[in-house]
Amino acid sequence: MRVGIVMGSDSDLEIMSEAAKVLEEFGVDYEIHVMSAHRTPEKVFDYTKTAEERGIEVFIAGAGGAAHLPGVIAALTTFPVIGVPIKTSSLNGLDSLLSIVQMPSGIPVATVAINGSKNAGLLALQILSIKYPEIKQKLKEFKDKMKEEVTSKDEKLQSLGYKNYLSSVKKS
Amino acid sequence: MRVGIVMGSDSDLEIMSEAAKVLEEFGVDYEIHVMSAHRTPEKVFDYTKTAEERGIEVFIAGAGGAAHLPGVIAALTTFPVIGVPIKTSSLNGLDSLLSIVQMPSGIPVATVAINGSKNAGLLALQILSIKYPEIKQKLKEFKDKMKEEVTSKDEKLQSLGYKNYLSSVKKS
Amino acid sequence: MRVGIVMGSDSDLEIMSEAAKVLEEFGVDYEIHVMSAHRTPEKVFDYTKTAEERGIEVFIAGAGGAAHLPGVIAALTTFPVIGVPIKTSSLNGLDSLLSIVQMPSGIPVATVAINGSKNAGLLALQILSIKYPEIKQKLKEFKDKMKEEVTSKDEKLQSLGYKNYLSSVKKS
Amino acid sequence: MRVGIVMGSDSDLEIMSEAAKVLEEFGVDYEIHVMSAHRTPEKVFDYTKTAEERGIEVFIAGAGGAAHLPGVIAALTTFPVIGVPIKTSSLNGLDSLLSIVQMPSGIPVATVAINGSKNAGLLALQILSIKYPEIKQKLKEFKDKMKEEVTSKDEKLQSLGYKNYLSSVKKS
Amino acid sequence: MRVGIVMGSDSDLEIMSEAAKVLEEFGVDYEIHVMSAHRTPEKVFDYTKTAEERGIEVFIAGAGGAAHLPGVIAALTTFPVIGVPIKTSSLNGLDSLLSIVQMPSGIPVATVAINGSKNAGLLALQILSIKYPEIKQKLKEFKDKMKEEVTSKDEKLQSLGYKNYLSSVKKS
Amino acid sequence: MRVGIVMGSDSDLEIMSEAAKVLEEFGVDYEIHVMSAHRTPEKVFDYTKTAEERGIEVFIAGAGGAAHLPGVIAALTTFPVIGVPIKTSSLNGLDSLLSIVQMPSGIPVATVAINGSKNAGLLALQILSIKYPEIKQKLKEFKDKMKEEVTSKDEKLQSLGYKNYLSSVKKS
Amino acid sequence: MRVGIVMGSDSDLEIMSEAAKVLEEFGVDYEIHVMSAHRTPEKVFDYTKTAEERGIEVFIAGAGGAAHLPGVIAALTTFPVIGVPIKTSSLNGLDSLLSIVQMPSGIPVATVAINGSKNAGLLALQILSIKYPEIKQKLKEFKDKMKEEVTSKDEKLQSLGYKNYLSSVKKS
Amino acid sequence: MRVGIVMGSDSDLEIMSEAAKVLEEFGVDYEIHVMSAHRTPEKVFDYTKTAEERGIEVFIAGAGGAAHLPGVIAALTTFPVIGVPIKTSSLNGLDSLLSIVQMPSGIPVATVAINGSKNAGLLALQILSIKYPEIKQKLKEFKDKMKEEVTSKDEKLQSLGYKNYLSSVKKS
Repeated sequence: MRVGIVMGSDSDLEIMSEAAKVLEEFGVDYEIHVMSAHRTPEKVFDYTKTAEERGIEVFIAGAGGAAHLPGVIAALTTFPVIGVPIKTSSLNGLDSLLSIVQMPSGIPVATVAINGSKNAGLLALQILSIKYPEIKQKLKEFKDKMKEEVTSKDEKLQSLGYKNYLSSVKKS
Repeated sequence: MRVGIVMGSDSDLEIMSEAAKVLEEFGVDYEIHVMSAHRTPEKVFDYTKTAEERGIEVFIAGAGGAAHLPGVIAALTTFPVIGVPIKTSSLNGLDSLLSIVQMPSGIPVATVAINGSKNAGLLALQILSIKYPEIKQKLKEFKDKMKEEVTSKDEKLQSLGYKNYLSSVKKS
Repeated sequence: MRVGIVMGSDSDLEIMSEAAKVLEEFGVDYEIHVMSAHRTPEKVFDYTKTAEERGIEVFIAGAGGAAHLPGVIAALTTFPVIGVPIKTSSLNGLDSLLSIVQMPSGIPVATVAINGSKNAGLLALQILSIKYPEIKQKLKEFKDKMKEEVTSKDEKLQSLGYKNYLSSVKKS
Repeated sequence: MRVGIVMGSDSDLEIMSEAAKVLEEFGVDYEIHVMSAHRTPEKVFDYTKTAEERGIEVFIAGAGGAAHLPGVIAALTTFPVIGVPIKTSSLNGLDSLLSIVQMPSGIPVATVAINGSKNAGLLALQILSIKYPEIKQKLKEFKDKMKEEVTSKDEKLQSLGYKNYLSSVKKS
Repeated sequence: MRVGIVMGSDSDLEIMSEAAKVLEEFGVDYEIHVMSAHRTPEKVFDYTKTAEERGIEVFIAGAGGAAHLPGVIAALTTFPVIGVPIKTSSLNGLDSLLSIVQMPSGIPVATVAINGSKNAGLLALQILSIKYPEIKQKLKEFKDKMKEEVTSKDEKLQSLGYKNYLSSVKKS
Repeated sequence: MRVGIVMGSDSDLEIMSEAAKVLEEFGVDYEIHVMSAHRTPEKVFDYTKTAEERGIEVFIAGAGGAAHLPGVIAALTTFPVIGVPIKTSSLNGLDSLLSIVQMPSGIPVATVAINGSKNAGLLALQILSIKYPEIKQKLKEFKDKMKEEVTSKDEKLQSLGYKNYLSSVKKS
Repeated sequence: MRVGIVMGSDSDLEIMSEAAKVLEEFGVDYEIHVMSAHRTPEKVFDYTKTAEERGIEVFIAGAGGAAHLPGVIAALTTFPVIGVPIKTSSLNGLDSLLSIVQMPSGIPVATVAINGSKNAGLLALQILSIKYPEIKQKLKEFKDKMKEEVTSKDEKLQSLGYKNYLSSVKKS
Repeated sequence: MRVGIVMGSDSDLEIMSEAAKVLEEFGVDYEIHVMSAHRTPEKVFDYTKTAEERGIEVFIAGAGGAAHLPGVIAALTTFPVIGVPIKTSSLNGLDSLLSIVQMPSGIPVATVAINGSKNAGLLALQILSIKYPEIKQKLKEFKDKMKEEVTSKDEKLQSLGYKNYLSSVKKS
């Protein structure tokens, strides 16, 4: 196990599973848990403290509203903690973002965009790639693939024109 | 001890001491501590768990930025927890407010205004007054005194006129 | 009657009924009223002034927009007043939140999250539990039950994996 | 008396006196009071209810934070109520603005800019001018005078150039 | 004609017609126009300048986004101008609100809530009621009717209980 | 080619095509590309550097979230760059707006409204019209046509009344 | 005259003079005026309508709060209008920014950063450079000079180290 | 060299030097540069591309306003990039924060708090500690030291009482 993915509620699972998917694509082991800084504080405590034994080297924690889970984990470990602010129904995730990113001096949380779970997975991979050269190679291929996708979309736009492009997108 | 006042940093002490002052005025015992949900998580854990034995019935917790202290205490107790969002230098306390008030279902924090530490003390007194009738009586007197203060200011305004009132205020 | 639930409009009833439900679960008497600080100010006046005779010890007041109801009740009583900011169509409840939480010194309102009516009910129970030990016991059981629910969701996630978990959630 | 100026605290008096000054310039009678929707609710009640007998036809109410005073007065009268959101130390008056302007259907408050007390006075004069033609004439002269002031500033700018203009302003 | 209702776009007509409806209910003459401060500036100029001749005594102007129409009219008249911030698709009307309410010293706009067109109509009636006593009487009846509506809703809630009330509302 | 339209993702194409449409209406040549400041930085570099040779005189760049594309192009050219903030799902485009408009001294981006792609096209035409008088003439006709459309809508409103107008709009 | 700089108040002159300075540096003629969309609407009307005769090809308009001046000018011309949101005391210029940038379809305003007057001057120069090649050459030199300044600062940082750099900056 | 610290302007150096200081404390090599994504884009390009050869494994990039530097570097490398939003004079760093954190899918930036440069240094150390065990050990000691500092402050508060504590802080 290299990455520990945790979230405050199973309603965050659909978003947070994007981090799991990108780790799977890269062949990196992870574990994924539902636990709440507020409803199961002892479990968060125990989980973080025992993670090192299981080989966890990076944490990804997603939470919404008064989103304390990433900060609570960061308080308990010296491993990097990536925070994913989950979009909320009333304040659209601005509350989650500020609750996660505005950490006090001494306890950083590496915050990504609202609902940016896939990027949290990629950031975990970038962090691990410093130690594991095989991940570094795959990240370069991933970056090349992204470039090709954008380039091929632009080529399609040049050949079809924007009107046909838009109608082709709507059909699919 | 009836009320436990805690804050994340001693830089919050000047604001948070207003809660202590109002409790002193009412003759209600309190304790006041600096402890951090992020820097001393175990201490917050222990403190909250042992508070009941010392007779604490209400918590007042102040914190700024990604302000997790009130929520972490609320996770560990069934006593009421009052949260005081501390004004911050960059976002003026909007981050503190949202980090404290937007708690998930099941774990409420009774949030007061940004820097509203005096009101946190009064809310603690209102809560205690349900059980302790002598506090209820003092709260009524406090409310009457507030009324008289506003009324006497208005009487002064009527007798002086606004120009003299303003210059009398500036002198003092 | 222990708790007085009031709201500014019957359009808030669906949200505010969650406070009533949690009080029912705990077997605590409450009354629930529609009254408006702006459309029926005299009624709010009379209601608050007579509540004490009926045994009300905590108020829960929900309102949206320029949400004055919790503050107006707090002005008229020395009992604790819990404010529930109702989500609004244009500003998503940020207006309600600021109108309720930013009370002036001397008149606190214990504010919960936007649409956080269930938490308002729980906070009322926490407040009453100081005086009524039977509520305290039930709050501990409630907290244990929340823990078990999160734990059993995590166990289900571990046994099913996230893909099956997500599809099982979508089916139900 | 034609206009009733009220404010929630004497700390608002410096701002609110600008409304008084403009009414004086126009020779329109007014009264000016400190009273609080939260600290002296009964006084607000009595004041508003008796204002009609004293000839008050427009109210100007200034308040900050959870700014309920204009709305509470509007609830008690059918005369126009002008609300002045007072700038606050933490949220700069955004809280005051939303607490005053976002009134529910049926109870309007005519809201002006944050700290816009002078404009509140002018709006009161515009409202009164419908009934009192002598005010209408003075408003036209006021508007002409404003035009002349801007025009003479521009003429000064044309004759001095911006560098000299700026240094002449700094000297004075 | 007593009231001039204008709006920047016919997409605002559904909202702005609520002001017209309340004026009709009170039997007060009005005119209603689509004109844009940006697309038809000369028409706004001419319209405002000739309004006095047609007997217009109060303007109601609704606009969204960079909402300049109320301010432009206010620049051209000494009659009261009521501004209605229209809700926008991206910023929900916060842009409209700030563009209307934050007017500079000398040129007030009486701003109501986002989409608060009905309240704009009522505010116009309150303003006119100073001069026309028959409107004053109707405003008192309107206020009484609002009270009765809230009161009868509360009576229904008391007799049905909240569960039956909610299901009766959903049926209708 | 006169105008280069670029966007960070093909998901922005529907919005950005409005700029293309208005340029087509005016008979002004343009090219339209998908390229990303983050996924294809070299392409943005090359594209901007070679644009001058192809006759591009104005750039229109649309992007959402941490919207860097307009600023990155502005860093690489001395031609005017028009930025279109794309509405985002979580923060509604406020993030895009601030990321585009708040450029540092020395590198301006001419920012239009959120999703204001049509206005970006018109601004490009206004800029080109300084050099190309035939565009200036067409802009005047465009402005006149806008006036006529608003005027004819108002005439329709006067003849139908608002109730019939609204039902006629709903039918179509 | 090539550029018309206007501002709503002489209190904006210090900020707006930065646009004048950059135009002077480039040897481009400009005129600079104080006129208000609200206090002198007719003057804004006349000024904009006669600007073309004086050779004005680009407008720069600065305003604060409910900042209507850039939009009102844009309504009256087909030349490009650059808007400068002036920082305000209560809302820090967020009101000015939204009032200027969120223009309706058909009437763009090219908005720069809050207080971004220098960039407004540069944007005007970029726009004029399409027609006047001598400006284009100077813009390239300006861009090179900016590069050199940043590069020489970095060289100084490398030679001094950050501690000495910081103390050297504080001395000067 | 392990860490590359870059910033958009030397005005950010005082804040950004806190990252350098914490790296020095831990004995980790770093380089620190001023370069601008907008004024020196080619230098940012070259710098990032050559960093790997110099052994850089983590980037820390600080920028304010439309803060593109962290994202531009992230576009050019597969190493982790930590973004520090610098507080701005008008929008207090909310613009910087959103410009840095809201990155599109595929290109994460690990964002810390506004002006959170010290935490950026600590996050870089946490990232490096996965590969370099000696850093891990020092991070644990750092965490213990933080705990002791908070604990000793609390002990001082218990022995002095809050009044003496506050006056002792003011003296020093």
